[in-house]
Amino acid sequence: MLKDCLENVRKASPLIHNITNYVTVNDVANILLAAGASPIMCDFSGDVEEITAICDGLNINIGTLNDDTIRAMFLAGRRSRQLGHVSVLDPVGAGASVLRRETSLKLVKESAFTVIRGNISEIKVLALGQGGAKGVDASVEDAIQEDNLDAAIDLVKSFARNSGSIIAVTGAIDLISDGTKTYVIRNGRPEMARVTGTGCQLSGLTAAYLAANNDNPLEAAAAAVSAMGLAGEIAWQNMQSIDGNSTYRNRIIDAISNLSGDELEEGARYEIR
Amino acid sequence: MLKDCLENVRKASPLIHNITNYVTVNDVANILLAAGASPIMCDFSGDVEEITAICDGLNINIGTLNDDTIRAMFLAGRRSRQLGHVSVLDPVGAGASVLRRETSLKLVKESAFTVIRGNISEIKVLALGQGGAKGVDASVEDAIQEDNLDAAIDLVKSFARNSGSIIAVTGAIDLISDGTKTYVIRNGRPEMARVTGTGCQLSGLTAAYLAANNDNPLEAAAAAVSAMGLAGEIAWQNMQSIDGNSTYRNRIIDAISNLSGDELEEGARYEIR
Amino acid sequence: MLKDCLENVRKASPLIHNITNYVTVNDVANILLAAGASPIMCDFSGDVEEITAICDGLNINIGTLNDDTIRAMFLAGRRSRQLGHVSVLDPVGAGASVLRRETSLKLVKESAFTVIRGNISEIKVLALGQGGAKGVDASVEDAIQEDNLDAAIDLVKSFARNSGSIIAVTGAIDLISDGTKTYVIRNGRPEMARVTGTGCQLSGLTAAYLAANNDNPLEAAAAAVSAMGLAGEIAWQNMQSIDGNSTYRNRIIDAISNLSGDELEEGARYEIR
Repeated sequence: MLKDCLENVRKASPLIHNITNYVTVNDVANILLAAGASPIMCDFSGDVEEITAICDGLNINIGTLNDDTIRAMFLAGRRSRQLGHVSVLDPVGAGASVLRRETSLKLVKESAFTVIRGNISEIKVLALGQGGAKGVDASVEDAIQEDNLDAAIDLVKSFARNSGSIIAVTGAIDLISDGTKTYVIRNGRPEMARVTGTGCQLSGLTAAYLAANNDNPLEAAAAAVSAMGLAGEIAWQNMQSIDGNSTYRNRIIDAISNLSGDELEEGARYEIR
Repeated sequence: MLKDCLENVRKASPLIHNITNYVTVNDVANILLAAGASPIMCDFSGDVEEITAICDGLNINIGTLNDDTIRAMFLAGRRSRQLGHVSVLDPVGAGASVLRRETSLKLVKESAFTVIRGNISEIKVLALGQGGAKGVDASVEDAIQEDNLDAAIDLVKSFARNSGSIIAVTGAIDLISDGTKTYVIRNGRPEMARVTGTGCQLSGLTAAYLAANNDNPLEAAAAAVSAMGLAGEIAWQNMQSIDGNSTYRNRIIDAISNLSGDELEEGARYEIR
Repeated sequence: MLKDCLENVRKASPLIHNITNYVTVNDVANILLAAGASPIMCDFSGDVEEITAICDGLNINIGTLNDDTIRAMFLAGRRSRQLGHVSVLDPVGAGASVLRRETSLKLVKESAFTVIRGNISEIKVLALGQGGAKGVDASVEDAIQEDNLDAAIDLVKSFARNSGSIIAVTGAIDLISDGTKTYVIRNGRPEMARVTGTGCQLSGLTAAYLAANNDNPLEAAAAAVSAMGLAGEIAWQNMQSIDGNSTYRNRIIDAISNLSGDELEEGARYEIR
């Protein structure tokens, strides 16, 4: 049950190590606290191994790379794998430059992530070596819709099998697959794309759900994705006429902090394929 | 018409490359999304040239420098100029240290920015090699007021001619000049100075307006400055008694996200000199 | 009187140099502006000495370290001490890794901070070389409560005497001591721990209070701690049912921006031991 996944985060209060971009890092910290987890941020190669070791899960986000943070990602990824920790990769803008594409491909190869979460263009870059990104956003032609859903599920299943990771593609329709079983989730609002970092926040949240539900990673990932989408829906209902995307950002995190297991269970809209 | 400038941003949805400080970077991303543009942040010398090439405009902000981000600014500036992209320089605290002054002077010399936007103290440092900054704020003695307006217009016009860039000085009265024509804008609220990064946000916004209005840069810059000031006014009207500068920050970005072309056209308060 | 300490910040508007982590830096800037101070952020070794020299106080926070920011902290700390500026150290997660522990111990030894502010686990690491941190949070077993208050006061007094700094330990009960006199403060809300960076914000605020109350550092530090706790209480009263930790973050900074000297004087709950 998705409900248990959420409640386990509040009970276990997992400590999550985030190597993440400096654009949305504050929101990632606050959404982890909202969910009942604890964040620690550390991206220095001289410190990451020890920090990862004291944590319950690792969240790597390539949104703003440099030489040392890349080194730190590989060090932390290796240490985390050795310790059997859960881990998430968010390949932000993997199609936007050679550096981003190659770094994320190499991370996928070496680090055995529990979950790789991105938009469809980013996942296509990792799965097929191509994908039409517009910067850090998915391209319109890549978008998963009802009429190309079967093909998208095939792609995601196949990449999950090849990579050994659970693949979570988020967009208008979200797909979460371990290569055998696929959650098709229809929570969320299109307006979430006008808030910077909702994807980054979801990746952090996913790491927390995984860490608190170690024996059930596929359902944990689906619960995190559904919770984020539902929070976007609840937050949208709470918007007033003067509110815009900045208030929406706050309302989404607020909704995560107020979300109960029962509300998630009732509000989640998904099928299993 | 200022109205067209705003609407063109929503239509074109330009992708803006930001090399900006880590203090206000999240707000810069959210205000670009609020305006209808898309942000991408990248400040690593090993990645900036490729990122700039896929974007429609470049926004360089020197608020937090280090060796590599300085290198990245020159690389991106050069590439952007070669590609004929619009570009904005925000010389944050140009008078606060030798490093900031020399970096911004050298950037001005090499990069041929479409617009240089700063407070009057920062612009004086670039135009005259001097200016009495208090850290990153303009000094009181530099402030543009009605009684020194003519002299300020002369300064700005002259610097625009010498630099080949449009100069945008923002404060109680804003001046935007290409050396021939000068917009004198009286939108805005003094309380905007109590929110960190309203200047940084405006620089990002200006890059978006320029990118979506390539053949009309002076009016585009004036429209961005006026929109930001008007958003500050609308946001202030929406403040409740318990609200303070943090909520004001959100309300300003919210106002940009709700601002229509007609509202800008009606609310803009400017004369052309 | 605490009231005077607050009002002096608004009168003097001190400029505070922050070398702080990229997670909560925006909130630190906004709370300084809320209090009536001015922030400047700079963590590059090639720039910090000059920036510190133009400021009235220095705030060093080790939340996200790297080689160069560590170098910058020592350079700024030395320059600040030479100039007789007030300074604050926030040893975020001092117990979480060797790098953090050794950097903060060395900073304490070399920089003669006016105030060292942390949670009890961080302060124990600095005072005793040990402390049971959970990442950047205090461990439950370390928490100061009524039944171990006397022992905690002894610890803090002793560390204040040994270090020559005022020690400020914040948590459910806050202790601020110069080794002779100890403020025991009972303002605040437990929910503040669910907002990232309330500690970082308080450290910045403390630097501003010290800078504006140079001849009265113990009371200034107590006033800052009490103001932050009181802001947490006021903000909590202003929360609506749909609000969560993200809105709470905004409301706390808002409360600082609206807080008057009289409100602080009335709302402060402390005894002197």
